[in-house]
Amino acid sequence: MFISLEGIDGSGKSTQARMLADALRAEGREVVLTREPGGSPGAEEIRHLLVDGRADRWSAETELLLFTAARRDHLERTVRPALDRGAWVVTDRFADSTRVYQGATRGDLRGRVDALHRLMIGVEPDRTLVIDLDPAEALARTTRRHAAPATAAPEDRFETMGLPFQTRLRAGFAALASAHPDRIRLIDGRGSAEDVAARVRAAL
Amino acid sequence: MFISLEGIDGSGKSTQARMLADALRAEGREVVLTREPGGSPGAEEIRHLLVDGRADRWSAETELLLFTAARRDHLERTVRPALDRGAWVVTDRFADSTRVYQGATRGDLRGRVDALHRLMIGVEPDRTLVIDLDPAEALARTTRRHAAPATAAPEDRFETMGLPFQTRLRAGFAALASAHPDRIRLIDGRGSAEDVAARVRAAL
Repeated sequence: MFISLEGIDGSGKSTQARMLADALRAEGREVVLTREPGGSPGAEEIRHLLVDGRADRWSAETELLLFTAARRDHLERTVRPALDRGAWVVTDRFADSTRVYQGATRGDLRGRVDALHRLMIGVEPDRTLVIDLDPAEALARTTRRHAAPATAAPEDRFETMGLPFQTRLRAGFAALASAHPDRIRLIDGRGSAEDVAARVRAAL
Repeated sequence: MFISLEGIDGSGKSTQARMLADALRAEGREVVLTREPGGSPGAEEIRHLLVDGRADRWSAETELLLFTAARRDHLERTVRPALDRGAWVVTDRFADSTRVYQGATRGDLRGRVDALHRLMIGVEPDRTLVIDLDPAEALARTTRRHAAPATAAPEDRFETMGLPFQTRLRAGFAALASAHPDRIRLIDGRGSAEDVAARVRAAL
C-alpha cells in the first residue's frame, strides 16, 4: 500500500505520518516513511533548490518542473522499489500538494500541473489522508514550532504566506477530496495527536 | 533574433557561438551570448545537478525534467528579457540538444520530449546552426582539449560515451535539420575556425 498524508502547514500531517508508520511497523509490516519534496538522495538535492532562498527565486513554471523532477526521482528510487518488495510506503506529501499549492497561487497553471503529472509521473497513492484543520489553529502550531530555536527551520518559503493563503489551501484540499472520494479522505485534525491518529487508522 | 548553435561534442559549436557573437557585436548590435544547460543563475545551479556525478545519477525521465526546468529559467531570466529589449541572443545549445541526446539514448522517450517542450517551453530559436563534423575528428578535438590540464573539465558525463554514440547524435541532428529546413541549417564543420565562421555568417 502507498499512502500519502496531506494538509496545510501546521496541520500535523508529518506527526501523523510518523505515528502511522510506527503503528504499521508494530503490526509487523515493513514500512518506508518518506516525504516530498525529497525522499531520495537526488530528490533531496532538488529540495534544496526549492525550499532555500528567496520566494521569487523560481517562476511557478520552473518550480513545477523542479517539483516534478524530484517526484520522479523519489518515485523511482524510493517508492517503487519499496512497493515492489511488498513494503508499505507512507509519504508526507505527494502530488496533491503540488495541485493544491499551484491552484492557490497560480490557478491558471492547474491544467499544466495535471498534464505534466500524466506525462511524467502517472501514479497516485492508493489512499490519501488529508489532515483537515482550521488555518488559524494550524498557523498557531507552526508559530509555536518556529519559536523554539532548536527546531527553527530555514525552509519557510511556503510557510510565510499567511492565513489567507492557508485558507485557500484548505479549500483546495477539500475540493480534491470531493473530486476523488475513493482515494482521498478528510481527517478531522483537531485534538491531540493520539486522537487524530485514531481517526487516521479508522479511515484506513 | 534568437540563434542557437548545435552539434556533437568537439564539433566547435562553442567556438562558433563566441565568434558569431563577436562578429555581431562588431556590427554594433547588442548580443547576449549564453549556453545550456545553464545561462541564468538558477539554471546554472540545475546544471551542476546534471553534469556532475555518476552517469546513472538520474534516470532519463528525471534528467529530462531537470533540463526542462533549467531551460524554462534560462528562457525567462536571460533569453526573453534580452529579446524584449532588442538584443540578439546566441545560445550554445537549446532544445534540439535534448531532442537529439534523448533520441540517441532513450528513443522511446522522444514523444514525451516533444510533449514536455510544447507544455512548458513552447519556443524555438529563429535560426539553428548545426556544426556538422565527422565524430572521429570531433572526438580527437575533444581529447586534445581534455589532455590540457588547465582546461580539463569535470563536466564529462556526456563526452565519455564514445564514437558510436556521437555517430548517433550526428545522425539525429541531420534528421532534425531535414525535418525543419526553414529553421535548422547544417554547417560544414571542417577546416579552421575562421573557415567555419564564414560559413555560419553565410548561412545567416
